[in-house]
Amino acid sequence: MNETKVTAEALLQFCGACFEQLGLPTVDARLTAENLVFANLRGVDSHGVIRLKIYADRLRAGGFRAGTKPRLVSESESTALLDAGQGIGPVAGVAAMNLAIAKAQKTGAGWVSVKNSNHFGAAAFYALRAVGHGMIGFAATNAGPTMAPTGGREARLGNNAFAVAIPAGEHPPLVLDMATGAVAWGKIFVAQQEKRKIPTTWALDKSGLPTDDPDAAAQGGFIQPLGGYKGYGLSLLLDVMTGVLSGGGFATQVRTLYQDLGNPSQVAHGCGALRVDAFMPCAEFCRRMEDMIQLLHSCPAAPGSQRIYVPGEIEHQTQQRREAEGIPINPALCVELTALAAELGLTAPFQS
Amino acid sequence: MNETKVTAEALLQFCGACFEQLGLPTVDARLTAENLVFANLRGVDSHGVIRLKIYADRLRAGGFRAGTKPRLVSESESTALLDAGQGIGPVAGVAAMNLAIAKAQKTGAGWVSVKNSNHFGAAAFYALRAVGHGMIGFAATNAGPTMAPTGGREARLGNNAFAVAIPAGEHPPLVLDMATGAVAWGKIFVAQQEKRKIPTTWALDKSGLPTDDPDAAAQGGFIQPLGGYKGYGLSLLLDVMTGVLSGGGFATQVRTLYQDLGNPSQVAHGCGALRVDAFMPCAEFCRRMEDMIQLLHSCPAAPGSQRIYVPGEIEHQTQQRREAEGIPINPALCVELTALAAELGLTAPFQS
Repeated sequence: MNETKVTAEALLQFCGACFEQLGLPTVDARLTAENLVFANLRGVDSHGVIRLKIYADRLRAGGFRAGTKPRLVSESESTALLDAGQGIGPVAGVAAMNLAIAKAQKTGAGWVSVKNSNHFGAAAFYALRAVGHGMIGFAATNAGPTMAPTGGREARLGNNAFAVAIPAGEHPPLVLDMATGAVAWGKIFVAQQEKRKIPTTWALDKSGLPTDDPDAAAQGGFIQPLGGYKGYGLSLLLDVMTGVLSGGGFATQVRTLYQDLGNPSQVAHGCGALRVDAFMPCAEFCRRMEDMIQLLHSCPAAPGSQRIYVPGEIEHQTQQRREAEGIPINPALCVELTALAAELGLTAPFQS
Repeated sequence: MNETKVTAEALLQFCGACFEQLGLPTVDARLTAENLVFANLRGVDSHGVIRLKIYADRLRAGGFRAGTKPRLVSESESTALLDAGQGIGPVAGVAAMNLAIAKAQKTGAGWVSVKNSNHFGAAAFYALRAVGHGMIGFAATNAGPTMAPTGGREARLGNNAFAVAIPAGEHPPLVLDMATGAVAWGKIFVAQQEKRKIPTTWALDKSGLPTDDPDAAAQGGFIQPLGGYKGYGLSLLLDVMTGVLSGGGFATQVRTLYQDLGNPSQVAHGCGALRVDAFMPCAEFCRRMEDMIQLLHSCPAAPGSQRIYVPGEIEHQTQQRREAEGIPINPALCVELTALAAELGLTAPFQS
C-alpha cells in the first residue's frame, strides 16, 4: 500500500476537530494540533500525529484535563511559575513561552517554569516563538524515567529534552532540538526488526551493562545518556530546571505518556527568552550568525559526507518540501486515525 | 622522584605573588590564583597550576593584558555586556558572574556576556559563586577551534565548555562542569604513550574519519563532539551564547591558549544567575534537591560500578581530601614552576 500524503492544513483541521470533540476549547485544540503538525512538517514524525491517538486516549481517560487554563502561581520581573492544572502540554508550553517573551521584552531576560503539565511534544515549537521577537528562545521538558544514572541499573531520569532557537538573518533560525539520550528507542526497535547489532554506546541491558543486542536493550534495558556521564549530567540538569524548580514532578515521579492514562503524568517544563538587542542591534547579531553559518557551511566535507549542515537546517528543508508536497502518513497510521475519526464522528482527511 | 604535596594556601600565595610580579593588581592576582588552585583542589589538574607558566608567558608577551578592568558596554535590567579589554579571564569571569547575581537579585534572572577576554579556566569557579546567594549559576566560555562540525574535516569550533551550579541543601552543590568534546586531548596523549587504541567515538583523523589510533588523532586530527551531532550542536550553541552574542570572537576567530602569545585570544564568556526563591522558598528547593540526590544515590549499581555519583560529588570529595592532605604537584611541574619562580625573583613552595 502506498503512503498517503495530506496537506498540513487538512491535517491541522482534522487534529483540531478531534481535540474539540474531545473537549478542548477551540483555541487550545488548534494550538495542540499545530504542535503535532509542526513536528510532522519538520520531519520529526515521532512527535507528530502519531501521538494523536494517545492524546485522545488520555483526554478520554482523564490524564490530560481538557479546558484547564495555566494559572500564574508567582512571578518576579524576569521570572514566573505556572501551574498547568494537568492540562494538555502545548497549551501550558505556549503560555509559558509567551510569558517568558513578555518578561524579556521588559527586562532583557525571562524564565518561566511550569508544573503539573503533560507531554510537551516538539520543544522547538516553543523555542521558535521567541525568534520573531528578536530573541533567543529556550524550551525544556522532563519526561518519564527511561535512563539509568551513570553506573546504575534502574531508570531514574527521563530522556529529558530541550530546544534553543536563534535568529539567523537570511538563514532560517538555527534550531537545536535534542533529547539527552544517545538515541531514540525507535532506532533500537528498527535494529530489532532488521536483526542488526547496535553500537554499544546506545543502550544498556537490564543488568546495566552496555549491549550491542537490540533485543537485550528492549527487554528491560535502558537508553544510555548521550556521551556517557556528560549526558547523564545534562538530563539531570534539565530535570532540575523543569521538575525540581517548578515544584512539579521530577525523576521517578513523572509518568511516561503511555503509562496510567487516567492519571496526571506530572511533567514539568521551563521556557526562557533572551532579548538579542540587549546586547547589540538585532541586525548586527543576525549578520554575525550569517558569518557563523557561512563558516560552518564552508568547512570541507569528510569522506562519506556531502556537506555540512547547521542544527535545524535539515528540518527546515523538510518543512519546505512537506509544505509543498504534503505530509506522508503511513498505512498503519491511516488505519489508526481513521478509526479514531469514526469514534469521534469525524472524517479523516485520508482513506485507510 | 616522589610527588610533592603543597597546601592550597601556599600554592595560592605563590601563584598570587607570581601574578603580582607579572603586573596584575593584588586583587586580580589573588583571584586568578584562586581560579587555578580551585581546579587543583577539585582534582581538575588540567585547569590548575599547570597553566601558571603559560599564563605568565602570555602576560609577558602581551596576549593577556595586566591591570585592565572589565568595562560595562551596555545593560538592561536583567542583562549586561562587558568588554574585558583583553585582560585575564578570571577577572572578567568573576565580574560577569557578580553582575549576573546582582541582576538576578533585583529581577529574578540575569545574563551577562563578555567579549575580548582570555582563557576562562574552570567554569565551575564562576557558577558556584551564585549558590551562596540562593541562586542557580551558569558560566560558559568559547575556546580556540579544535573540533570539526559533524561531517567536516577542518576545525571550526572550540571544545566549548560550561558549568552549572545548583544549591543542594545538606549536600554540596550539584555542579555540572563539562566541555562539549567527547574527551580531552590529554586522554588521547596518554593512549599514545601507552600504545593503546582509543574508542572510535573520541577522535577523527586528519581526513575527518573516526579513528581508533591515537597517533592518527594527534597528527592533525580532531576531537569528536560528545555524542556525535548533538555535541556539535551544543558546542555551537555555547559559541553563540558567548562569542556571537557578546560581539567578541567566535569559531575560528578565537585563538587557543598556546597560539600567538603576544596577541589577544578573543575568548568570550557568558554568565547567568537565576534566583531560586523567585519560584519557591530556597529551603524547599534544597529539600527537593536532597530528594533528587537521594533517588540517584539509591539506584542499584550496575556490575563493575561501586555506587552512583551526582555531578560535582567526586570533585567535592577530592577537594576535602586535598584541603587536608595538600595538592600533589608532579616532578616535571615542580621543575617548571621552580624555574618560573626564579625568573620572577620568587621562591616556589616546593623543591624541584
